[in-house]
Amino acid sequence: MLQKPRGTRDLLPDYMAKRRSVEKVMIGTALAYGFGEVSTPMFEELELFTMKSGQGVIEEIYAFKDKGGRDLALRPELTAAVIRLYCNNMLEAPKPVKVFYMGDCFRYERPQSGRYREFEQFGAEIIGGEELPTNIEMLTLALDILTKTGAKGLRCRVGYLDVLRTLFEELGVKRDKQGPFMTLIDKGNFDGLKELFNEKGMKGPLIKVILEIAAMNGKAGEVLPKARELLKGYPRCLQALEKLEGIVEGVKSSGIPAVKEILVDLGIARGLDYYTGMVFEIDIPDLGAEKQICGGGAYALTELFGIEAMNSTGFAIGVDRLMVGLENQKAFPALEGPMFFLIPFKGTEAKAMELLRVLRSAGLSADVDLSNRNLSKNLKYAAAIKAKFAVLVGQKELDKGKVVLRDLASGKQVELPFKGLIEAFRQCDWGPSAPANGTPEDADLEKKKTREWE
Amino acid sequence: MLQKPRGTRDLLPDYMAKRRSVEKVMIGTALAYGFGEVSTPMFEELELFTMKSGQGVIEEIYAFKDKGGRDLALRPELTAAVIRLYCNNMLEAPKPVKVFYMGDCFRYERPQSGRYREFEQFGAEIIGGEELPTNIEMLTLALDILTKTGAKGLRCRVGYLDVLRTLFEELGVKRDKQGPFMTLIDKGNFDGLKELFNEKGMKGPLIKVILEIAAMNGKAGEVLPKARELLKGYPRCLQALEKLEGIVEGVKSSGIPAVKEILVDLGIARGLDYYTGMVFEIDIPDLGAEKQICGGGAYALTELFGIEAMNSTGFAIGVDRLMVGLENQKAFPALEGPMFFLIPFKGTEAKAMELLRVLRSAGLSADVDLSNRNLSKNLKYAAAIKAKFAVLVGQKELDKGKVVLRDLASGKQVELPFKGLIEAFRQCDWGPSAPANGTPEDADLEKKKTREWE
Repeated sequence: MLQKPRGTRDLLPDYMAKRRSVEKVMIGTALAYGFGEVSTPMFEELELFTMKSGQGVIEEIYAFKDKGGRDLALRPELTAAVIRLYCNNMLEAPKPVKVFYMGDCFRYERPQSGRYREFEQFGAEIIGGEELPTNIEMLTLALDILTKTGAKGLRCRVGYLDVLRTLFEELGVKRDKQGPFMTLIDKGNFDGLKELFNEKGMKGPLIKVILEIAAMNGKAGEVLPKARELLKGYPRCLQALEKLEGIVEGVKSSGIPAVKEILVDLGIARGLDYYTGMVFEIDIPDLGAEKQICGGGAYALTELFGIEAMNSTGFAIGVDRLMVGLENQKAFPALEGPMFFLIPFKGTEAKAMELLRVLRSAGLSADVDLSNRNLSKNLKYAAAIKAKFAVLVGQKELDKGKVVLRDLASGKQVELPFKGLIEAFRQCDWGPSAPANGTPEDADLEKKKTREWE
Repeated sequence: MLQKPRGTRDLLPDYMAKRRSVEKVMIGTALAYGFGEVSTPMFEELELFTMKSGQGVIEEIYAFKDKGGRDLALRPELTAAVIRLYCNNMLEAPKPVKVFYMGDCFRYERPQSGRYREFEQFGAEIIGGEELPTNIEMLTLALDILTKTGAKGLRCRVGYLDVLRTLFEELGVKRDKQGPFMTLIDKGNFDGLKELFNEKGMKGPLIKVILEIAAMNGKAGEVLPKARELLKGYPRCLQALEKLEGIVEGVKSSGIPAVKEILVDLGIARGLDYYTGMVFEIDIPDLGAEKQICGGGAYALTELFGIEAMNSTGFAIGVDRLMVGLENQKAFPALEGPMFFLIPFKGTEAKAMELLRVLRSAGLSADVDLSNRNLSKNLKYAAAIKAKFAVLVGQKELDKGKVVLRDLASGKQVELPFKGLIEAFRQCDWGPSAPANGTPEDADLEKKKTREWE
């Protein structure tokens, strides 16, 4: 039988309900922060991605030619596309432009636990604001969203690339030559870094400072004073460090619970030249090798499009990994089916349909027998889809102007009026609520009670 | 400058806010009907689509090979993928299985007004229910969703393919040979149909009945009795017609307002063999050539996957066309920006941040100056992003424990306490509410009032 393509997933109702609840938190929080949503095509000109990430990226993405011979690629990430969207459509919008997005991205890589060839990203970008308040706003939004999804034990590490970048400048390595050094630092490969220094014949006290700074991480209150001490002979580096101090202080005052965990990591680096100032990563440590669920920072990408340089800051959350984290932490409530499942009997179908319409029009979730089944099979189905109540629409009760409402968890039944059912239902005292997917405690008794229906 | 690929779109915040409101109605209604959401990959094995629609479909879709040499294609529609998902994952689920989906699809065709190479579909399927109640449920859901989006003047045409199919059988044309006839009928090409009859040497009174039936459409109350009269010599065809009568009657009793417009169209046909019973199309007639926004019906696709034949019914809504229709009908309310825009002054930034946190924690939408601007520029920006109120956090007022709240539409200002702002704000009488994006009526006066801030 045909299967889904390798590395992709079919998402079923239980999962989708959970994912929608997470997406709702993300979208709602971003809107409440004054961000507006944008959406870009699922594929772009291949050049957009090679321009941002180099030719090597072609090996990792779904690139193809369309029937017109155009080189296209399924998007491997969304920042490049959102900046293109900004340059094509929003140059005249009042600054700062605050946008967010949510959608699937695609990478051709070996599928493994928690890594798929199609995966969902949520992200936000601020284009054209002042650096400090923009950085604080961005990091606060990321932390607030993740906190509101219910994720526990979030660990946020913040750095500031200019601390290292200015140190390298002091060493005589210009910004556009720093890539190989930064890549090694980003990977935590300090032996490789030392080798590179040796190869280039670089020596002296600055090398030691760079190695120490690159290895510094821990609680902000401990790392920042140590770094300040170490950098006191380098005023330009101190300036960069002060910017990081400002971010940490600002984010702390935001009152987001996860902020208690803010760590400073001066060794977060990026190999590409357009990353400049703030950089941050947020982990759920339980997730092990796939622990990073969010990455962000400041970048200068508009120049690649021939637009004036503009301070931009953004982040992206890996929604699938976040979902794994939330699932592990049992952050999702038990899923519920429809509130009501209507069970008609021979000759009462039209009345059942009428009741169905009343319930649904009132905004209540209601399902109905679509299989012309008998009562016991219908009760079984209603329990299987996790409905909360069955409504038995029998002729005998209809003759008295009533229907029977049955709590599927407890098996408790009451007669309620056909007309005014919703109001009567709301006034009903159901006692301590039982789990919606429980089973009747006294199945035999229930059988006796319901037999008359069959 | 790099642009989006031909035939695709960049969607900006105003549009996305509207689309999200439509999606929310769709998802909410489907859930309230007891449907569960599923999601399939953006691309599938090419074979899935050729199996369903024939080799010809390759010309109209984005087909490509991945790096492993697999023949893949961006999905041109979602029914085939959802049936694959069902066959791969849900065979054991209690029947009927009620699922819905929402996502982008892709067709390589000439871009034109209202037709894009990437477009969004919303759809639902019921697999394994009894035919009549399933058909009613499906058509009711489609009409209810479209009505709830605010679409006006919906026109729904329902047919039943077995009326024609059994007539052709009476004529001696077996079901698997009916494709060419049905395709001509579906296109309304009756001259072509007559030619085909001639070519095949088919004659007699049945030809006339087929031609009359295929051309019959109009109000259910008029068409159904006429068809009944015409078919009275063909009991099997009458049986099929009775099924259509049952659907029309059932949907009418659902009480959906759009149902007043239910039309019967016996000429809706489908060229492919797996379409069998009910078939329907819903139009917004204002949209002209692109008026059809929803199509649906019964089909037998599970057999293609080697699974036992199972009654399935579904529909798909073209979300982009629906959006055009709603936009034309001015169905969307004016969009609003954040409720509050906070304006700090030199030295009050920390207090402004504190207030921002209070407002956002209370679930209120609030934005803040990220550009260190002066008051008049901030007020201009706040109006441009359609904020409702500006909150001026000045030192003089803070010293009194207050801030200034300014209605951006009317220019009216009041002092409110810094602590307990939300409660005080809620008790504020703002008089008749002015449009959020209006301009102050007395700009000069306002200038005088606000100058002290600058």
